Amino acid sequence: MAHLVSTSCSLKISATNKAFPQRSNQGPTAFPSSWALQSSKSPYESLISRQEKHQRKFIVQATAVPLNQQAPTQAGASSYQHSNGSSKMQRVMIIGGDGYCGWATALHLSNKGYQVAIVDSLVRRLFDHQLGLDSLTPIASIHNRLRRWKSITGKAIELYIGDICDFEFLSETFKSFEPDAVVHFGEQRSAPYSMIDRSRAVFTQHNNVIGTLNVLFAIKEFREECHLVKLGTMGEYGTPNIDIEEGYITITHNGRTDTLPYPKQASSFYHLSKVHDSHNIAFTCKAWGIRATDLNQGVVYGVRTDETELHDELNNRFDYDGVFGTALNRFCVQAAVGHPLTVYGKGGQTRGYLDIRDTVQCVELAIANPANSGEFRVFNQFTEQFSVNQLAALVTKAGAKVGLDVQTVNVPNPRVEAEEHYYNAKHTKLIDLGLEPHLLSDSLLDSLLNFAIKYEDRVDKKQIMPSISWKKIGVKPKTVAA
Amino acid sequence: MAHLVSTSCSLKISATNKAFPQRSNQGPTAFPSSWALQSSKSPYESLISRQEKHQRKFIVQATAVPLNQQAPTQAGASSYQHSNGSSKMQRVMIIGGDGYCGWATALHLSNKGYQVAIVDSLVRRLFDHQLGLDSLTPIASIHNRLRRWKSITGKAIELYIGDICDFEFLSETFKSFEPDAVVHFGEQRSAPYSMIDRSRAVFTQHNNVIGTLNVLFAIKEFREECHLVKLGTMGEYGTPNIDIEEGYITITHNGRTDTLPYPKQASSFYHLSKVHDSHNIAFTCKAWGIRATDLNQGVVYGVRTDETELHDELNNRFDYDGVFGTALNRFCVQAAVGHPLTVYGKGGQTRGYLDIRDTVQCVELAIANPANSGEFRVFNQFTEQFSVNQLAALVTKAGAKVGLDVQTVNVPNPRVEAEEHYYNAKHTKLIDLGLEPHLLSDSLLDSLLNFAIKYEDRVDKKQIMPSISWKKIGVKPKTVAA
Repeated sequence: MAHLVSTSCSLKISATNKAFPQRSNQGPTAFPSSWALQSSKSPYESLISRQEKHQRKFIVQATAVPLNQQAPTQAGASSYQHSNGSSKMQRVMIIGGDGYCGWATALHLSNKGYQVAIVDSLVRRLFDHQLGLDSLTPIASIHNRLRRWKSITGKAIELYIGDICDFEFLSETFKSFEPDAVVHFGEQRSAPYSMIDRSRAVFTQHNNVIGTLNVLFAIKEFREECHLVKLGTMGEYGTPNIDIEEGYITITHNGRTDTLPYPKQASSFYHLSKVHDSHNIAFTCKAWGIRATDLNQGVVYGVRTDETELHDELNNRFDYDGVFGTALNRFCVQAAVGHPLTVYGKGGQTRGYLDIRDTVQCVELAIANPANSGEFRVFNQFTEQFSVNQLAALVTKAGAKVGLDVQTVNVPNPRVEAEEHYYNAKHTKLIDLGLEPHLLSDSLLDSLLNFAIKYEDRVDKKQIMPSISWKKIGVKPKTVAA
Repeated sequence: MAHLVSTSCSLKISATNKAFPQRSNQGPTAFPSSWALQSSKSPYESLISRQEKHQRKFIVQATAVPLNQQAPTQAGASSYQHSNGSSKMQRVMIIGGDGYCGWATALHLSNKGYQVAIVDSLVRRLFDHQLGLDSLTPIASIHNRLRRWKSITGKAIELYIGDICDFEFLSETFKSFEPDAVVHFGEQRSAPYSMIDRSRAVFTQHNNVIGTLNVLFAIKEFREECHLVKLGTMGEYGTPNIDIEEGYITITHNGRTDTLPYPKQASSFYHLSKVHDSHNIAFTCKAWGIRATDLNQGVVYGVRTDETELHDELNNRFDYDGVFGTALNRFCVQAAVGHPLTVYGKGGQTRGYLDIRDTVQCVELAIANPANSGEFRVFNQFTEQFSVNQLAALVTKAGAKVGLDVQTVNVPNPRVEAEEHYYNAKHTKLIDLGLEPHLLSDSLLDSLLNFAIKYEDRVDKKQIMPSISWKKIGVKPKTVAA
């Protein structure tokens, strides 16, 4: 049963916290963790001005409130100029805001002056306990995260703890927060997790599909103008032998032409759940006039964003395990601890990748430029394509620069997927809206490898190898790590 | 919770049943209901010989057991010659075997010598109670249906009552019955039902998607060679402006070519659930080697099949209401009772249609010619295309022949759908396997209109008008009829 908690974050913060040691300065992107409310020219203000450089292409101007403008709950919300000239408060509900992408996005949007609420059941933390996994980075509780954010920036993020599959709970969050946009990260997002056993496969599809249905009904019932920004995945498309377009493809067949949803060939129960969501959302846009943007995201790497940098207690999670870890993050941890990079199969699997700093940019761009009423808009959200072998080569090279002798090993592929295939996916729509990509070549060392080295002593090598097989999934409940 | 019941049907039958009046002879397809086990040259034997005519194109020869070969539970099961020359017992599990298509199929396959088990939660009967609906035809309980079938033909159909969303129950049915083929009708199958309110939308998608996932896991775990014959719907395709192919389309795009799943544009939460199923099944064929046939069925009409004809207690259901009634069935009832035919919107909506006698033929053809291991095969299962206006004209003309003055009224379309559109859907694969269609022109009067006239006094006119709006669906629980 859902447990509804709406907190107005308290300013009471303990000055130090042993679980989160003080961070030393590490070049231009680091800040001391001990400043809080007293600084008149704070690092936070530097942050704001650095960010302004990147906003010049944004159609919507979001105004961040400087630290010294102490304000109650509403103060952080910016008014913005809509393309039609109207002005209104932007209230953004982030479902799954305690997760990897969700947390970074919540802070980013709060920082940019949006009024943010996080809706999360925290079940992702339960999965870690159940599977014996842990983030490489120590992460604070959501309550402490939000208290720290408030203490540093003066910005309150509202918190609703509960399960969106419980419609009564979700209704209350909508009636209470009245969102203008909903960013929906609130899904079980691991392909391997969905392939552990029948129970997890069913959980994944039930949780993701029904949760999204409930969000659609809540928008229709309580906030029909609200813009749904839904995280999809590039994995919905599979690896067709033709170019992948952004959501739709124009087909000429037997002398007639139509533009139709791009065919989907997902390859895990997780990826399939996103395909189901996409079809459900498309229907409600047509039938009810819902405005929706589906962000078909590539594989996200990195952990630092401008906001999580501000304090160790704002750390994002960093998964490197065989269940939740994405390929590149896992490779960097493997390199740091002297474990060979585990390439699944032949390593020709090619996918789209993006820096988590671009995830938060993309979501803001989508919110700032909302879909029209009845429009189901699909953006492919990634910046570069790599094969697994290319990633391994990049990490090997970067490792050499810092004195690491990185080895690679080909392990049997636990997945069912093409290991050599054509892959050319379009991704221009977010660039057209103003996305300025962080490229992997620039961030591999700073944002990933050095970070993995820093937390090297927290690595549990048992978590690294794949333990979940697409073919061996069965009906018996399974615990995958010990 | 599921209630598992496996019955070996008793031969004890009451000689008469006031709820099921004796049927008078009505031409060559009618049989007296009072013969049972004593006739040496029974109508049942005539039935067998009539059916043999239709089997000449079947690759697999199924041998029906004549009535006078009384036998225990196993006797009805035929051995058949597989295309590879091997011979084995064909055991067919029919999920949803108490429903409209399921019941007709169960009897048909039992008659053809397959060993049949019905798996059903009977929840469809509960929907009728909850919504205040009733079949035009009085239908017997599943227990009485099966007892009657056994008494007439000597053939036992096993019965498992429970919910396939309960995997423990489903596992037991697989372990007990050991099916060679599973015909899966066990889904909430009404588009309007899925659009009543949020609760029914969620129920439909949960029930259909999770039920099918469980079937896939059961096949993988317990009967990996078992052939899944899954009922899909032509509604998965929507109404694209290009020809609809059977499941896949070859696309040439930017100089490259691939054959991909045909794009789906479903337009109700029910139709969407079938799209989700299709994607899930396709994945398991690829990942696990499941053999599956997806029968994308058109709108089914008619009620009589050769087997349900044998006794009133074998009657199939006939839905004419706004929730479960399909267009043509509803029109015939409207004509019979002097109610104007209710054409939704402009009436240009064109769909594929088929006689229920062809539904049972198609399913048998699919079973007799199973998909290969790992193959996800899609057949479009319909025989003719009609627009709603064309159907209305046909019923009007047929009505005139029996002295009915049939009127038509255009009512506001409760659905969100194109009312004038291109529609050309391929449907050759089942014909290639030997389907010999019953055409509407031949069966409209005999199988539909006269039938509606016969049960005219059971019609509840309040059930006829559409009461469920695609646009007005909300989150409050709703009762649609009173």
